[in-house]
Amino acid sequence: MQIYTFGNGEAQGRAHMKETLGGKGANLAEMCRLGLPVPPGFTLPTEACHSGFQNGALTEELDTLLTQGLSHIEQMLDRKFGEPTKPLLLSVRSGAPVSMPGMMDTILNLGLNDEVAAQLAQETQNERFVYDAYRRLLQMYGDVVLGVRPENVLAEDPFEHCLEQKKEAYDVVEDIDLPGPALKELVEEFKGIIQDAGKTFPQDPRAQLVGAVSAVFTSWNNDRAVTYRKLNQIPSHWGTACNIQAMVFGNLGQDCGTGVAFTRNPSTGETGRFGEYLINAQGEDVVAGIRTPEPISALQDEMPTIYDELMEMFDQLERHFRDMQDIEFTIQNNKLWLLQTRGGKRTAKAAVRIAVEMVEEQLITRNEAILRVAPDSLEQLLHPTLSPAAKAKAAQENRLLGRGLPASPGAACGLIAFSAEEAQRQVANGEKAILVRVETSPEDIQGMHASMGILTARGGMTSHAAVVARGMGKCCVVGCDALRIDYNTRSMLVGTTELKEGERITLDGSTGEVFLGEIATEPPQMDDTLEIFMGWVDEARSLNVRANADTPNDAITARNNGAEGIGLCRTEHMFFAPERILAMREMILSQTAEQRAHALEKLLPMQRGDFEWLFKAMDGLPVTIRLLDPPLHEFLPQADKDIEAVAQELGVDKETLRIKTLQLHEFNPMLGHRGCRLAITYPQVARMQTRAIIEGALSVQQAGHSPKVEIMVPLIAHEKELALLKAEIQNEADLVFAEQGQRIEYMVGTMIELPRAALTADAIAHHAEFFSFGTNDLTQTTFGLSRDDSNGFLPAYVDKGILEEDPFVSLDQSGVGQLVAMAYEKGKQQRPDIKVGICGEHGGDPKSVAFCHALGLDYVSCSPFRIPIARLAAAQATLMGK
Amino acid sequence: MQIYTFGNGEAQGRAHMKETLGGKGANLAEMCRLGLPVPPGFTLPTEACHSGFQNGALTEELDTLLTQGLSHIEQMLDRKFGEPTKPLLLSVRSGAPVSMPGMMDTILNLGLNDEVAAQLAQETQNERFVYDAYRRLLQMYGDVVLGVRPENVLAEDPFEHCLEQKKEAYDVVEDIDLPGPALKELVEEFKGIIQDAGKTFPQDPRAQLVGAVSAVFTSWNNDRAVTYRKLNQIPSHWGTACNIQAMVFGNLGQDCGTGVAFTRNPSTGETGRFGEYLINAQGEDVVAGIRTPEPISALQDEMPTIYDELMEMFDQLERHFRDMQDIEFTIQNNKLWLLQTRGGKRTAKAAVRIAVEMVEEQLITRNEAILRVAPDSLEQLLHPTLSPAAKAKAAQENRLLGRGLPASPGAACGLIAFSAEEAQRQVANGEKAILVRVETSPEDIQGMHASMGILTARGGMTSHAAVVARGMGKCCVVGCDALRIDYNTRSMLVGTTELKEGERITLDGSTGEVFLGEIATEPPQMDDTLEIFMGWVDEARSLNVRANADTPNDAITARNNGAEGIGLCRTEHMFFAPERILAMREMILSQTAEQRAHALEKLLPMQRGDFEWLFKAMDGLPVTIRLLDPPLHEFLPQADKDIEAVAQELGVDKETLRIKTLQLHEFNPMLGHRGCRLAITYPQVARMQTRAIIEGALSVQQAGHSPKVEIMVPLIAHEKELALLKAEIQNEADLVFAEQGQRIEYMVGTMIELPRAALTADAIAHHAEFFSFGTNDLTQTTFGLSRDDSNGFLPAYVDKGILEEDPFVSLDQSGVGQLVAMAYEKGKQQRPDIKVGICGEHGGDPKSVAFCHALGLDYVSCSPFRIPIARLAAAQATLMGK
Repeated sequence: MQIYTFGNGEAQGRAHMKETLGGKGANLAEMCRLGLPVPPGFTLPTEACHSGFQNGALTEELDTLLTQGLSHIEQMLDRKFGEPTKPLLLSVRSGAPVSMPGMMDTILNLGLNDEVAAQLAQETQNERFVYDAYRRLLQMYGDVVLGVRPENVLAEDPFEHCLEQKKEAYDVVEDIDLPGPALKELVEEFKGIIQDAGKTFPQDPRAQLVGAVSAVFTSWNNDRAVTYRKLNQIPSHWGTACNIQAMVFGNLGQDCGTGVAFTRNPSTGETGRFGEYLINAQGEDVVAGIRTPEPISALQDEMPTIYDELMEMFDQLERHFRDMQDIEFTIQNNKLWLLQTRGGKRTAKAAVRIAVEMVEEQLITRNEAILRVAPDSLEQLLHPTLSPAAKAKAAQENRLLGRGLPASPGAACGLIAFSAEEAQRQVANGEKAILVRVETSPEDIQGMHASMGILTARGGMTSHAAVVARGMGKCCVVGCDALRIDYNTRSMLVGTTELKEGERITLDGSTGEVFLGEIATEPPQMDDTLEIFMGWVDEARSLNVRANADTPNDAITARNNGAEGIGLCRTEHMFFAPERILAMREMILSQTAEQRAHALEKLLPMQRGDFEWLFKAMDGLPVTIRLLDPPLHEFLPQADKDIEAVAQELGVDKETLRIKTLQLHEFNPMLGHRGCRLAITYPQVARMQTRAIIEGALSVQQAGHSPKVEIMVPLIAHEKELALLKAEIQNEADLVFAEQGQRIEYMVGTMIELPRAALTADAIAHHAEFFSFGTNDLTQTTFGLSRDDSNGFLPAYVDKGILEEDPFVSLDQSGVGQLVAMAYEKGKQQRPDIKVGICGEHGGDPKSVAFCHALGLDYVSCSPFRIPIARLAAAQATLMGK
Repeated sequence: MQIYTFGNGEAQGRAHMKETLGGKGANLAEMCRLGLPVPPGFTLPTEACHSGFQNGALTEELDTLLTQGLSHIEQMLDRKFGEPTKPLLLSVRSGAPVSMPGMMDTILNLGLNDEVAAQLAQETQNERFVYDAYRRLLQMYGDVVLGVRPENVLAEDPFEHCLEQKKEAYDVVEDIDLPGPALKELVEEFKGIIQDAGKTFPQDPRAQLVGAVSAVFTSWNNDRAVTYRKLNQIPSHWGTACNIQAMVFGNLGQDCGTGVAFTRNPSTGETGRFGEYLINAQGEDVVAGIRTPEPISALQDEMPTIYDELMEMFDQLERHFRDMQDIEFTIQNNKLWLLQTRGGKRTAKAAVRIAVEMVEEQLITRNEAILRVAPDSLEQLLHPTLSPAAKAKAAQENRLLGRGLPASPGAACGLIAFSAEEAQRQVANGEKAILVRVETSPEDIQGMHASMGILTARGGMTSHAAVVARGMGKCCVVGCDALRIDYNTRSMLVGTTELKEGERITLDGSTGEVFLGEIATEPPQMDDTLEIFMGWVDEARSLNVRANADTPNDAITARNNGAEGIGLCRTEHMFFAPERILAMREMILSQTAEQRAHALEKLLPMQRGDFEWLFKAMDGLPVTIRLLDPPLHEFLPQADKDIEAVAQELGVDKETLRIKTLQLHEFNPMLGHRGCRLAITYPQVARMQTRAIIEGALSVQQAGHSPKVEIMVPLIAHEKELALLKAEIQNEADLVFAEQGQRIEYMVGTMIELPRAALTADAIAHHAEFFSFGTNDLTQTTFGLSRDDSNGFLPAYVDKGILEEDPFVSLDQSGVGQLVAMAYEKGKQQRPDIKVGICGEHGGDPKSVAFCHALGLDYVSCSPFRIPIARLAAAQATLMGK
């Protein structure tokens, strides 16, 4: 282990050494090498976070390194840490390999004690400054190192309370207006607070340093940091580095100041500096909002030389790092110091604009531009969002009712509806509805369509509600544990708040938050840089992107979003419209082959019509149509009341219907009579669907279009299932060709969504012209994990670090991925020209897209609203693979 | 393609050529080579069955071969087929590669027509014989070749009807007493019957031969044959051979006869000839039971020379084939002919005795003896069976109510009980009970114990009822589709018969049949040859056999049956006793850690006691104890009424209990919150169980026993789950060791029962000291197939030939087996001394045992009553592997 010193134009570190030095340390070193004014200091590497301690104390090695580093700074500045004369004051800051803003701790003004303060007051002739620094040290050290802080968020901070009282006593408004003596009193009072808490502030500067370094390293595991890492999928084992640096002071007088600035606008991406500064202040004052800072442009008038210098440094840094920078600076007695630079966080809108404009400025290449935008962030550009101000206000008013899983992004506000019918009724009355259900089922589809958003008490990220809502591009929050619905009284309890049907709530589908009442939303914002950007993206990628789309509307949205075909059309979604579900139920209840044929004849023209629309909307592009997949009981009513109504409608005996429903009940429907198993036992259904597809394609072809038909058989476990059904499909298609005297090309393929299918993919490829990985089901069966039930324990799994991510969100590459790779290889071996894609929810997850690209798949298919994300992820995967 | 001729001490075929010649043809050839008297003939090979026909007619090639074969026979006998003078008559018989007795068709006396018959009557001076042969030909040809037969089983056969009328007209009782003129009349009348059916009997003998050969080959696909093949897992593509042979006649007079005999007793295995014969008859008369045949011993008096000759041939054949033979013979004018020999079918009891005695007679080796007994047949020796006569009578009386799946063998008779409580009540009253449920759940365990047998309307071969019943060695029929139970009226409908609780029924667990009323049973029959035999078996095998056993009783039975340890103790079965389930429910309903700890403290001593018993029963042998596996809702009451009762008993609010039950409800419990997922979320339960195991083992050790403890964690999907739980287990064990001041060795391992576990077995083996394949769950997840729901479509899968066998009965080697092999290799790679076994139901299936042996597993574990089967299967696998 070694330390990395920097200062005076030299540095042992470099910008690329972020894993060792953390982002902050690496960039401080880089700035030094660029000749920029950086206060001298050194970085303790990230490995010290884990190996620098034994039984809670610094190891001898780390202690020696600290001494080494100190003497580097002391030599450079000719000041001594802990010496009353020409004392050296230090800042100690954490710095992780990736930015975790505000998540970890910092201590400033380290090295002050009673004696040093007194001497320094003499030296600087600035008692106000010295005791302001000292009281800040006491406050930070007390909080961060000694743990003197309020017990809960409602309790008042004892230091702040004391400070407020002092300002009252001295009749001043701003901290800065407190005179030296007042601050000197505060120092004593702060020491008292620490003592009252049973702790002691060490007068020995070395002990202060050791305490601060320990606290910084320990802060890697504080709650905030752990939570942030979880949310942002940062591995725990990385650790933070620790930067120890000479203090510079923006609060020595009117020729001093401090500020934070971005080299471009982080919200919009517009060029021009964007930031704020305060005269006579320390950096934390800008962030804390204690005084209202000035816009950076005002500095031009106030300190024109410094301003020009700063602007030049901004340019230099942006050019050097070739990215928009987020910079902290301090002015000490008219001398400018840079304390930090890093790539600036930005909205998706800004990210796209900056990337495009930097290409135009020839600062970066197109490929670099493509890599600069996080694929997931594009979702912001496609959905309305809650107005940040209105949302903050709602939170302040305690209107946040609870949280669920952010299943489908966007924001929605409307009246609570506990049934699909009620939602449709509300919409018919000109209201907006939020459908609130324990869970949704295919019967709710019409109500989901009508609603602005969907909220469920149960289910995970790939539950029915989640999948369908994402497909519709509709805001959805699922698995809201705090939610208890009582359908009988048409009311619900969220935490302790009881709400009735018809009351208004607001959902944030990007965070999973549920609010009481209305919150203003903002429409999705796009500009023409996005179009330019996506053009580059499409040029860069080799992986095709298709859409999971079941309706002509979906198909149109998908094509507008850049889909290159339909990878999954779930035909069962076509069966839930009111006039169709009746015919479907008639089919299910048929006692004889004739009755069944009769019911299927009713469905045939409807299906054919759907397919015609799809083929037209995707003219010239492939359309993969999956045969009926869900178990039949999903089409039958479950509640006694509904059974009675349906029996009447169908003209069958209520008891017959009830018995049929019971007979079709399954203990584990996910592993039951569904998928191709339906087609094996009811080949007539598969034949009707084949006929609808082929007849539809022929009629569209006759009208001058080019339908590209792919018929997909779901849930194959054994090659013989596919052999049998392929024969059924071909026989029916041949019948249609003979009847109509014309032919059309079509492919027959299969989902690979069961482990057995993956394991025997070579045998299956003998019959399949294409494979489409159904990674939702494949994840369920490979893990033995029901997506509808996993909500009860999966969060604990992520919490305990067993799983880094929900495997239904990001493909489990080491487990499920093995099967995908195996099936791909076996498939290609048997049939080298086999077309292979993925149509699970993972098709829209950037990491999973990268995995599919690396494997060599032909396409990914995802919901229409994730297509831009998949396109970008595919492009990035291509570029990173090079 | 060629024909294979035989006759006069020479033959082109051999006994080992069964795949080409079928069993009958191969053995006819072999007998010829042995110099035994076989009528000359030739065999058309099995390939002709598929390739000998085009558009329903013989190919030219087959036609040429027929001519070739005919001239071989004609030359040998100096007779001509179809010539009126010295005519040759032929028999045409099918013969498949494996014996399919009575399943396929035969035509005798071929070559007779009006002209030939008249000439032959002159030649033989035996009009009675000639027209008897002619009428038999007409009858067989009419039935087999021309399809003139009754439309259904109730209608009378027109030929038989005519024959009966003729006997009445001539006032005779036996067919044989009909005089020549009567038979001559019958010939004309039979021709009339054929003509009335719109068919014609060909007078051209060549046309007769072509028709007969076609019919024999076609008979391979008749319903009887197809069904038999399915039941006996004989592949369809094999085909049958066709044997064409000169006729010999047992019905030429009193110096003629025909018979069937076994070289040993096929029921008991006793030495001594066992068989029957008829004087002046054709072979079919013996089988058809038209006249009552004489025991073979009577032939010694009637035809002493022939008898001695025959006995010598029997000895020669048994010595030559080195197995008990089933032989057909005919005596024509004091000359003996052999028409068939084959290995005789036998009961399990006979198989064991014959095998053991043939070793003692030095006819075969011990290894051959081991291979002579079908492992599955041993089940007959371990369970009571229905008396065949009583069962036949019941069937005649139309008391067969329906059929389900033969889930657990044996026979049981008792009163219908629709609930576990009722079954226990009946037993308390001194009655025998049959528990009849839609399906069983762990709550029914006590009632299952009390009952003689279990019948369910739902579920497959590995449903709860099936698995538990097999474990108890209790007769069980599941998935009886015809059964409708109405718990409300305490009645059930089987087909059209309504039965009330308390009525008597009988189950045959080996066939799945359900009978009305009582049928006498026979106790299991064993003799000391079984013990000798199993001794050889154990010497031969290398694979260990353990038992799945949950109670001390199970363990004792298992050890008596030869178990070498417990491979799976399902601890949850210990929680269902009345006083325990209350504590378990208290644990589940706990709101705080303290409440939970309190409930667990109640369970601890009970669990410890169970384990002490198990360790004692298995003293010195390994005992694998699986931590709690099923989802918690299985322990809670489901019906409103039960919820109320339990709430009262526990002193909790009924509503609280109802809500908890609802909360724990899962859509797909098989993929839900169970297995190690419970231990992850409730580590206290795993710790309590660990403590009970370790404390129990220590106390048993102190008492001088040697417990061998293996703690098994179920449902691992990810290595980190096991890492975490292993730490919990070790921590708790260390606590106990510290408390007691003594230690004991124990292992920690895991089930491999999810595809992901198999795929990442190397990582898992890092923490696991042993693997146990849970192939039930592994089959469910690999196939995506719920064992509780598959009954609805799996039969169709086997019917349509998609699956050759139920994958829950015999391990799917090409799919699931790949995962098992992969996990085994990865496990061994990571930890070369890892112990690997299998504890799914497949552990007792012979084919699966062979697979496990071939893979190199250390042991299989199965239910106590299948242990002898597994031992034998393991021995056979070892021998066949050599």
